[in-house]
This record gives sequence, C-alpha cells and structure tokens, in this order.
Amino acid sequence: MTPDSLAAEVLSGNPRAVGRAITRVERGDDVAGLLAVLSPRTGAAQVLGVTGPPGAGKSTLVTRIAAAFRRQGKRVGIVAIDPSSPFSGGAILGDRIRMNELDSDPGVFIRSMATRGAMGGLSRATNDAVDVLDAAGFEVVVIETVGVGQDEVDVVRAADSVAVVVPPGLGDDIQALKAGILEIADLFVVNKADRDGADRTAAELQMNLDFSEHGGWRPPIVRTVATRGDGVGEVVEQFEAHRNHLAASGEARERRLRRSRARLRALLEAKFFRAVENDAHNPRGLEDAVARLTDRLVDPYSAADELFRRIAAG
Amino acid sequence: MTPDSLAAEVLSGNPRAVGRAITRVERGDDVAGLLAVLSPRTGAAQVLGVTGPPGAGKSTLVTRIAAAFRRQGKRVGIVAIDPSSPFSGGAILGDRIRMNELDSDPGVFIRSMATRGAMGGLSRATNDAVDVLDAAGFEVVVIETVGVGQDEVDVVRAADSVAVVVPPGLGDDIQALKAGILEIADLFVVNKADRDGADRTAAELQMNLDFSEHGGWRPPIVRTVATRGDGVGEVVEQFEAHRNHLAASGEARERRLRRSRARLRALLEAKFFRAVENDAHNPRGLEDAVARLTDRLVDPYSAADELFRRIAAG
Repeated sequence: MTPDSLAAEVLSGNPRAVGRAITRVERGDDVAGLLAVLSPRTGAAQVLGVTGPPGAGKSTLVTRIAAAFRRQGKRVGIVAIDPSSPFSGGAILGDRIRMNELDSDPGVFIRSMATRGAMGGLSRATNDAVDVLDAAGFEVVVIETVGVGQDEVDVVRAADSVAVVVPPGLGDDIQALKAGILEIADLFVVNKADRDGADRTAAELQMNLDFSEHGGWRPPIVRTVATRGDGVGEVVEQFEAHRNHLAASGEARERRLRRSRARLRALLEAKFFRAVENDAHNPRGLEDAVARLTDRLVDPYSAADELFRRIAAG
Repeated sequence: MTPDSLAAEVLSGNPRAVGRAITRVERGDDVAGLLAVLSPRTGAAQVLGVTGPPGAGKSTLVTRIAAAFRRQGKRVGIVAIDPSSPFSGGAILGDRIRMNELDSDPGVFIRSMATRGAMGGLSRATNDAVDVLDAAGFEVVVIETVGVGQDEVDVVRAADSVAVVVPPGLGDDIQALKAGILEIADLFVVNKADRDGADRTAAELQMNLDFSEHGGWRPPIVRTVATRGDGVGEVVEQFEAHRNHLAASGEARERRLRRSRARLRALLEAKFFRAVENDAHNPRGLEDAVARLTDRLVDPYSAADELFRRIAAG
C-alpha cells in the first residue's frame, strides 16, 4: 500500500489501517510520506500521559480512564510503551488483561510499542503513533510508560497533561524515583489507595509538591482503587481541569511548541549522524576518529572539529 | 592563565591547577585548548565507576575504597556527580562527611560536579574531568553517580569497571531500579550488609545475573559494611580481577573505544545544534520550523529535511 492510500484509510478511521500505519511508524518504514499527509490533519486530540513505577497499576488505571472517556462518547487511542527489559515485564501482562476488557469496543484502539527496536528512537516512534491516532479521529490519546529513564520521560513529555501514578508505601523510596518524573506531573494518582501507606504516600507527595510549581497550576493528588474503579472519575475531571488551565494560561501552546521542538531535534540529530556515518568521501571517518582518540593520537575537541567540518562542507 | 600554562601545571600534578582545570571543564570555558594538551597524556589511570540508588551508602564506600588504594601507594581522584534535584540531596551530605576523612591527604583529590549547569552536558564534563585527573597522574579515578536516569548511566559507562551498590531490602523494588543500571554492573556491592534483607537482596541479584553476561565475566556480588570497612578489601580485589579480565579478553580496548565514540558523538551533536541555532542566513530557522510544525503548516519530516539541507550546505 502506498503511503498516500494508507494515509487516506487512516483519515477515514479504518482501524486496520491505523494498526498498519503504526507498524510502519514503529519500523521506521516509509514514515515521511505517511506523516506528510497525516501530521497536518492532527491537533484535535487531547494527549494524556500516564507514567509511574512498575507495580503502580498503570495498565488497570488506563483501562478505567479509557472506559470513562468512552461513556462521554469519546474514542480513545492508547499507546503503551512496553519495556523490553527482562527486569520489567509487568506491562505485557497488564496489557493482556486489559485487552480482554476493551478489545471488543471499536471506539478503543490499543497498541503496545517496544522500547527497544523502534528505529530512530522511541520518542520519534511514539510521537508519530500519536499523530496517526490523532489524524484517525481519536479524541483522546493516552501514552502509557514506565516512569524510569530519560527516554520514558521524553516520551511522556509529548503529552498535554501527565499523570504520575504511584503505589502506596512508596514513602521511603520516593527519592529513588527519578526526580524528573516527579517534576513533570500535572496530576498525581495514589493508586491501590485501599492499602496501607496510602496516606503517608499522599503526604510525602504533598510535601514534595512545594518544589514543583507549574505556572500557577498546583498538581492535585487523587486517590484511586483502579481495580474497583474508585476515584477514576476524579482523575478524568482533573485531566479536564488541567486542560482548561492550559487553554486559559496559554501554556497549551507552550507545550505543543516544546513537543515540536523535541521532535525536530530528534529527527535532525538522526539525520546528522546518518550523514556522519555515511560520508561518501570518508566512510570510516567516525570510526577512524574514535580509534585515533582512543590511541591518544588526537584530543576529543580537535577530532570533533575535523569531523564536523567535513559534514558541514557537504 | 592560558590553557597551555594551566595544562603544564596540571601535568606536574599541582593540586590547585587540577582544581582550576576542572572548574574550567565544568564551565565549558576554554576547554578545547586545555584538553588538546592533556588528552594525549592520559590513559594510565584505572577509571572506576560506582553507582546505585540514593541511600545505598555510595559516598562512604567510595571513601573506603580510596583509602584502600592509598594504602597501596596509589593516588586517587574522585569525581562525584552531585544531583541538583531537591529530591535527592543525599550525596552532598555524604560528600561533606568524607571530605573530613580524606581532605588532609594530598594523594586524594575529590571534586563534586553538579548534574545541572554543566555546559554541553554532564557526560562531556565528566569525561573531561577524568582526563584532567588522569593527566595529573592519579593512578585511580573514581566516578560516583546516583544510578537513576540515562545521563548517569552514560556517565558511569565511561569507566573501565562499574560497581553497582545496593542497600539491603531492595528485593521487591529491584524492578524499580532502571534496568540499564543493573546491566552495566561489573560488580555488585550489597552495602549495609549487617542489616535485615541483605541475604535476600544478594539472592535477587544472583537471580537477575543470569540475564547479564559480560563476555565471560560473571559479575561477583560482594557484601560490605562500609561504615566499618568490612568487605572493602574484597571490592578492591574484584576491581583488580575485573581489570585483569578486561586486559586478558581484549575488552579493555572495546570499552575505551566505546567511551571515545560516546565522547565524539556528544561533541558532534553539540556542534551541530550550535550550527542549527546560529545559522547566520537563517537565525530563526529552528524556532520558525517549530512554530510551523506546531501550527500544522509542515510535517515533522519535511521540516527536518529543510533545516538539515541548510546546515549541510554550510
């Protein structure tokens, strides 16, 4: 299928075309042609990020959030970033459970993307997948990631509003959470709030909140028991409240500019290193410089200067 | 002081010059000239990385390791990456405590570097600081980082051998540790091993070890009580054993090539984006493209193509 005809099918909302387009996006296969048609047709979707440590119950919560938006008549696309590491296989299981709950609903589209193997970077692939879903007419798009690592932080920052989900009893280990993930929260969710330690975790988050002001928005802390659906309505309301705040404060545009900037930088960086590695006049240029640097025949700054001048000279 | 005369003082081992050179490195101030002299005079130091979550007792352990190398007559330089976040201020306290223990010894040089504010990236600054210490004749250079975040992982990967320090009782939360940090360990240290949970933590690490083979090297698990010095001798022996393995297997050169590659890529990337942002013919080029992308007047791939062609054309 040509990029143009696939794009046309995506725009008409055909779910099989949406799945096929995201597969191409993931493989980095003919993406430029596809996005050239789809990207200009995006911007209507509310993009939500849900992140947090393994075991916080993100998948169940996202399932409930999707169901709540469905009751408002909105179509929901979910991009779940699936950690490829053997140390964190939780998301895969959660994904299967939730597939059973939502899979029969044509107004919900769920797609897992592996953190490894996405050509040209996870962030590039996720942003493109969000564009596909947005262009296909999903009113709400949820990006779900495990909140560890700079890659995941970058990915979730593509969202308009970010919820950080934590389990109770995280109190002592709150430091161990990447500081960055706490700072990007527009909304905290203490899930499994029927368990011991929920009060203390909420109090710890409240304390740490003093450090992170979001341009007049004070991130609320919502307690949920996602397995029973408790508190999920409030999460959806707070996402809505944050959306209104973004629109009223002008921060909505700031965030979209930031997302565009990050996308452009990632694409430019990939292009630049492809150029370095495929320099026809000097195909071994980078590796030669690496070897000379390792052998102390050149210092790093002179080596970088030399390589860069070659590329900039075309 | 000119870069050349400062470099000469560093090469003679003058500790005040070493301090001044690292300050320049941190500020990104006249670094190219300094490193042009110093980098070719490096390569003799054994570069060790020590990383792990906050509360693992890294600072105390590094202090003890330094003391053990001192007893072998070796000079030790320490670069402690000091997380700038309000959520993880632990390193600063540990640093003060240890300064008192080691500061009177002229054979030890300790320097904290902030994760924020290092011009051109933390990894660039850390690698340059290691070169300064190496060129100044420190036989052992230790890089100490909090093991959360891709930046910290990149930094510690600059080391020849990496120890990951974990506190007891991490068992359940081992998933919450960035998988990456477990994978880069050449040596695990269960510190505070006199506390409950040390056995279980060691067993969990042992289990997870099956996933990470290091070219024939099976990362040992050493228990320490750093505050009392227990087990520190074994840590130093295992660093030595790993160094011998690296030399015998040829992996030493692989690692140094990898470090050179990462340094070059970081410098090239910084140069490239400086060129994008300072394009004389199109000074608002990047921000204009960001705005047009945000307004859906262009798709991300076409925008990146256009910007890139300008830069590559000089």
